Amino acid sequence: MSDYLAKPDPDDPKLTRTVAGIDHAGAAVSVPVVEERTLTLFLNAQEIVTLMTIGDHPAELAVGYLLNQNMIASAAEVSAVDVDVDLGVVVVRTAHETDFEAKTRKKIRTSGCAMGTMFGDVMERFEEIRLPNAEVRTSWLYALTKTINTTPSLYLKAGAIHGSVLCQRDRALLYMEDVGRHNAVDKVAGYMALHGLSGDDKIFYTTGRLTSEMVIKTVLMGIPILISRSGFTASGVELATRANLTLIGRARGRRFTALAGIERIVFDIAPDEAAEEPPGLRRKAAGDDW
Amino acid sequence: MSDYLAKPDPDDPKLTRTVAGIDHAGAAVSVPVVEERTLTLFLNAQEIVTLMTIGDHPAELAVGYLLNQNMIASAAEVSAVDVDVDLGVVVVRTAHETDFEAKTRKKIRTSGCAMGTMFGDVMERFEEIRLPNAEVRTSWLYALTKTINTTPSLYLKAGAIHGSVLCQRDRALLYMEDVGRHNAVDKVAGYMALHGLSGDDKIFYTTGRLTSEMVIKTVLMGIPILISRSGFTASGVELATRANLTLIGRARGRRFTALAGIERIVFDIAPDEAAEEPPGLRRKAAGDDW
Repeated sequence: MSDYLAKPDPDDPKLTRTVAGIDHAGAAVSVPVVEERTLTLFLNAQEIVTLMTIGDHPAELAVGYLLNQNMIASAAEVSAVDVDVDLGVVVVRTAHETDFEAKTRKKIRTSGCAMGTMFGDVMERFEEIRLPNAEVRTSWLYALTKTINTTPSLYLKAGAIHGSVLCQRDRALLYMEDVGRHNAVDKVAGYMALHGLSGDDKIFYTTGRLTSEMVIKTVLMGIPILISRSGFTASGVELATRANLTLIGRARGRRFTALAGIERIVFDIAPDEAAEEPPGLRRKAAGDDW
Repeated sequence: MSDYLAKPDPDDPKLTRTVAGIDHAGAAVSVPVVEERTLTLFLNAQEIVTLMTIGDHPAELAVGYLLNQNMIASAAEVSAVDVDVDLGVVVVRTAHETDFEAKTRKKIRTSGCAMGTMFGDVMERFEEIRLPNAEVRTSWLYALTKTINTTPSLYLKAGAIHGSVLCQRDRALLYMEDVGRHNAVDKVAGYMALHGLSGDDKIFYTTGRLTSEMVIKTVLMGIPILISRSGFTASGVELATRANLTLIGRARGRRFTALAGIERIVFDIAPDEAAEEPPGLRRKAAGDDW
């Protein structure tokens, strides 16, 4: 099923541009490339970070970033999100001063910058999360891959972009893209928080490698199952095992490898019954970041 | 030619680990995955950032990071680099307080964190750099691709890793890998700075997309030619055009696309004379990050 709540808009003229160049034979070519803009994120009066982004869904990106960095604890803290697209600024406002701001005020009196302390706070929250029982059927996995690969996207149009998709059973719900893969994940997190979607019964599909950061973000979003076409890092596997996250990588066509939480996988379809990806719809490395 | 100054060591037991899991048929598999560790970087007494890295070449990574973030102006400022591998800490020491530290001290009195001001400083330096005349022959490009793809690497062993290679004519000089692509680039920058290698007559080959950040780092390294197997973003192309950087993307087998600085490309070999990549040596998306 592909009745998305939100999905890419490859026809949005703000997101791509056509550029002239030459090819390997010296012939003139013109190719579509994705835009990349700066977006400076403020939490109330405090400047947090300048992100490079394609520019869509700035409110979701900002809230998701703050959540996944543990700078806010939940969307309930947020009283307003002000976006100025032309200036490339997004301001997330809270009714009360956040713990992060209080900590920053304290920290700068001692060693200058609070950025270094955040990692510890994120890991503390990570350790507290108990992911629910859930299942992922291989028939869902194959259906999701097919839906995602055939959904019109900036990836199919211009390449060189990451995608993250929130799924429920065999349905793709939210498909976000961005030049930075963490931005795509943060947009999904922000959308979930702002629209009250829970992670409990969801499956998260993403294009990037299954690193520690990707595992941490998925666990913070409360999603028990993470799927990627790409490979694994050792600490990604280690953290997934600790959090009891189901970690499925190298998912291409019929093939996949699962290195954590394998008890959630239900083999309800023989791999032979799943179609191989037709070459034209394979995510090729042509636009890939690997 | 492949007489590297430095290259991957896929047999280093600290860099990979074998993990047990299951495949798409439910059969037990064991697969090698790359390690990923935290490395906390200090500039003198100031904590700068915690990086996720495979852990090799920490001194080069630290110095390259500080250079590419414009936190130090040159390796000449560096008086010592202390690495504690077990603690995951690297301290770069300078004889005198750096401009960055002075600015940070000033900045924290006003708005809390100096991180937001760095981007402006980097761009100021970017605008001042004039890249030299240079050439890249298509015969070199095809030879380099072949050398790099056949060099034993963590990528070939375990996938899910980025690679950056400093080249001179048709010779690959330095091949650095890391889980984060910016780490791989920063290791090359640090090695160049610590060993007094100039960028003027070099070619930079990297695995990631040609984004604004990748273009900025290449220009800061003084390298006039940047090649990637991956695609482009609009601001990557725009910045490359402004800096007169030769930007070659989607370089696979015989094919490539050049979107900036095309006058440096010398077509000295017909694409038909270049061999296509044998399937087994193609950088597959299997371990790719795209």
